[in-house]
Amino acid sequence: MKLTALEIAQKHNGIIEGNGNVLLTSLEKIQDATKGCLSFLGHSKYISFISNTKASAVLVHENFKTDKIIETTLIRVSDPYAVFNSLLIEKAKLKEKKHHGIHQTAIIDSSSDIADGVYIGAYVVIGSNVKIETGVCIYSHCYIGSDVIIGKDTFLQVRVSVMNETQIGERCIIKSGAVIGCDGFGFIKKNIKHIKIPHLGKVILKNDVEIGANSTIDRATLGATIIHEGVKLDNLVQIAHNVEIGSNTVIAAQSGIAGSTKIGKGCAIGGQVGVIGHLVLGDDLQIQGQSGVISDIPSDKIIQGTPAMDFKSFYKSYVLFKKFPDFENRLRMLENKKIYDR
Amino acid sequence: MKLTALEIAQKHNGIIEGNGNVLLTSLEKIQDATKGCLSFLGHSKYISFISNTKASAVLVHENFKTDKIIETTLIRVSDPYAVFNSLLIEKAKLKEKKHHGIHQTAIIDSSSDIADGVYIGAYVVIGSNVKIETGVCIYSHCYIGSDVIIGKDTFLQVRVSVMNETQIGERCIIKSGAVIGCDGFGFIKKNIKHIKIPHLGKVILKNDVEIGANSTIDRATLGATIIHEGVKLDNLVQIAHNVEIGSNTVIAAQSGIAGSTKIGKGCAIGGQVGVIGHLVLGDDLQIQGQSGVISDIPSDKIIQGTPAMDFKSFYKSYVLFKKFPDFENRLRMLENKKIYDR
Amino acid sequence: MKLTALEIAQKHNGIIEGNGNVLLTSLEKIQDATKGCLSFLGHSKYISFISNTKASAVLVHENFKTDKIIETTLIRVSDPYAVFNSLLIEKAKLKEKKHHGIHQTAIIDSSSDIADGVYIGAYVVIGSNVKIETGVCIYSHCYIGSDVIIGKDTFLQVRVSVMNETQIGERCIIKSGAVIGCDGFGFIKKNIKHIKIPHLGKVILKNDVEIGANSTIDRATLGATIIHEGVKLDNLVQIAHNVEIGSNTVIAAQSGIAGSTKIGKGCAIGGQVGVIGHLVLGDDLQIQGQSGVISDIPSDKIIQGTPAMDFKSFYKSYVLFKKFPDFENRLRMLENKKIYDR
Repeated sequence: MKLTALEIAQKHNGIIEGNGNVLLTSLEKIQDATKGCLSFLGHSKYISFISNTKASAVLVHENFKTDKIIETTLIRVSDPYAVFNSLLIEKAKLKEKKHHGIHQTAIIDSSSDIADGVYIGAYVVIGSNVKIETGVCIYSHCYIGSDVIIGKDTFLQVRVSVMNETQIGERCIIKSGAVIGCDGFGFIKKNIKHIKIPHLGKVILKNDVEIGANSTIDRATLGATIIHEGVKLDNLVQIAHNVEIGSNTVIAAQSGIAGSTKIGKGCAIGGQVGVIGHLVLGDDLQIQGQSGVISDIPSDKIIQGTPAMDFKSFYKSYVLFKKFPDFENRLRMLENKKIYDR
Repeated sequence: MKLTALEIAQKHNGIIEGNGNVLLTSLEKIQDATKGCLSFLGHSKYISFISNTKASAVLVHENFKTDKIIETTLIRVSDPYAVFNSLLIEKAKLKEKKHHGIHQTAIIDSSSDIADGVYIGAYVVIGSNVKIETGVCIYSHCYIGSDVIIGKDTFLQVRVSVMNETQIGERCIIKSGAVIGCDGFGFIKKNIKHIKIPHLGKVILKNDVEIGANSTIDRATLGATIIHEGVKLDNLVQIAHNVEIGSNTVIAAQSGIAGSTKIGKGCAIGGQVGVIGHLVLGDDLQIQGQSGVISDIPSDKIIQGTPAMDFKSFYKSYVLFKKFPDFENRLRMLENKKIYDR
Repeated sequence: MKLTALEIAQKHNGIIEGNGNVLLTSLEKIQDATKGCLSFLGHSKYISFISNTKASAVLVHENFKTDKIIETTLIRVSDPYAVFNSLLIEKAKLKEKKHHGIHQTAIIDSSSDIADGVYIGAYVVIGSNVKIETGVCIYSHCYIGSDVIIGKDTFLQVRVSVMNETQIGERCIIKSGAVIGCDGFGFIKKNIKHIKIPHLGKVILKNDVEIGANSTIDRATLGATIIHEGVKLDNLVQIAHNVEIGSNTVIAAQSGIAGSTKIGKGCAIGGQVGVIGHLVLGDDLQIQGQSGVISDIPSDKIIQGTPAMDFKSFYKSYVLFKKFPDFENRLRMLENKKIYDR
């Protein structure tokens, strides 16, 4: 990277404040930046760094105001993080090593159909009747069962398990250690014993899905567990059998969705959230971290707590939860008033 | 599958309502069923589907009542899901591909004793003095340490780690990514540093145990971590060193049991539950999801919350939790009454 | 092991009570001990076992008192568990099998620098420009990406993923299934879609770090996710991008730390704790299990709850939480008093 502040401003409709000719050769966080770095002001927690950052230029919001003396060059843009990210993406592309070809230790069933331009790493095992489209990268130690489809430009990091009949869309990213398509957790109780329910369904991941490291997505009893287009799951997330997650929903680490629950589109689900089975959750929900959802939720709500409720109500109650001991005192004082029993 | 409704009814002591001669060729969920499908009415949430299902026949409870017009054939039985499941099991058996033999890339120490009729997949590594009984299937990329015993007909999915000295019973299922027998998490504090406690014990899984994908079961410090007969663990469950889980207890995803705790038989433990160490929990407990258990619990309780309490008490209090702001208002009104201070 | 009680006492400045010449040949928990065993009295829950243990000798605290009749030999020392642990460590060393050499199936890029005295197991894959120092053991099925450094005497159990550019210190232990250095979970929202933020940073593990089975540590966006010296993470822990964990902090199973949060030194964090992103937590904190931390916390606090508060306040309020129904009754009685409305 070798750009002046002015060149960046021109490309992103930005306005320069300070020296536009300063040369920028790397990208860095505002608190860690040194001379020659371009940085950005994102999260409001980092505002204090603006006055003494060593960055040669900082991307800020077009309406950014401060009464501090600023020595660095400012580049005012409508979305500083988005501009910074576009530069990160360019840098990442340069750094990326493209892998091609099939490693000689990969074991691929002869009935499988591997397109040209696919990379298959060392010690990968691929079962029968698998179809792998062009541009797919499957890194070392992955296991792909039988009758699996993997759409073009999808990326499986090392040590991923994809069980029989799973269908994976295009441009998906599946991170190391993820397990896609194991039997679900279902039993019928017979006296005191638990008889396993066979899981004859499958898992379908649509296009542009990202699955985090060591996350687990179970296959359906019948039909399919479906992760729709653009869904992003963080690490250690559990998706049970027959769940359906609507497009562009994001789920943070260590959350779990129990069997047959349907979640709408565009939801933002925090970390360590639990959702019980057989629910229907709406679109554009925001579920705060560690919440426990035990009932259907309509669209556009923000919820929190276990069991989860409207988050404003939760906070009002929670603030008072801290005041309980005081409550009890006030109650006792009222009860002790002599007049009272007259 | 090619059965008439009548044939199914006869086999399972059912009663036909409607056309008993309808031919059933596949199994499907009531909401997804098409012509030729047999379905069932299980969870009460799905009752509304009965009047417009496309299924050719539906298994219902013998006492099922409705005022809706039903066009499909009903098969009344004492346990509809159990009958449906027995048909699923038959179908699953037909679909199952039996694997046999030892893949040429498996690396097996010559001191190990592998019975006839065992399947060992590609890139499996097996240490010294291991005993593997007949009917065991070990899928690709599994690692079996030294001095391990695996009982007959046990099934290890791909990428399972079984560390030294682990004992696994018969007919167990261990899902992909599970780690059985790592050192436990124990330290002695010396000044500010943590000195590792060696873990010289082992893990014992008895017969008919199921361990979920990416779950972790630590070996004991001394003695054994014991998972008794018929226990079923879901995905991403953590079982610490020296824990003992009683027979037929079921633990849902992402729950964790801390060191040296003993849990009784026949318990149903929800998802994301945490139990601290050194506790004794009784038999037939039901622990609601996300509960945190910090004290011994006698048998036959239903508990919830963090710290966990009787679930009815929890709900009574929780309902009022939502009314706190109202409480405070009522309290303030009482305090403000003029008469009061007379 | 073949030691008399007296020999142990002499080595650890202990005082014998009973027969000092009794021969001790093994180590066992007090409740499981048989003749010839040395045991110890650690956790107070086990005091009742002292009067009927079959152990030939028991390590107890120098000030231990009881009114029960004790038949076993007591060895009074200042720290019974530490003495017992030192004997466990000796036993573990005897049991340990040292592995050496590089397995012929390991695939190692020729540009990598592997010191003498390293063990590399079967089916390990190691990328380019990797530096592995002496005494390192890398067990089977591990994957080491490019530009990785692994310090001396570090131990990677089977099936560990170490992604590109990760730096691992000396004497670290990384357990089976852990994933170090995957991309973090970060997106920029553009209309309804989520655009991936590239993660160009890395993970640094300092010396004496332990990472639990199936735990995940994400690489930084820029800069590094840093796990400082002596930190111990249990199984299934999630550490997000750009997190920094201070030296000697211990985190129990299934906890998760969100992006860019800094945690101080010497903290003890319970199981299933969640900490949101961009926080600064002090030193020597104790965070109780299942807490949810959503704000900066100064040093030396003990906190609990979601959102987390001072643990004493939490317990005071929680005790009263159980009394809510009673509260409401008392409030209603006050409101119903006739005198009241006069």
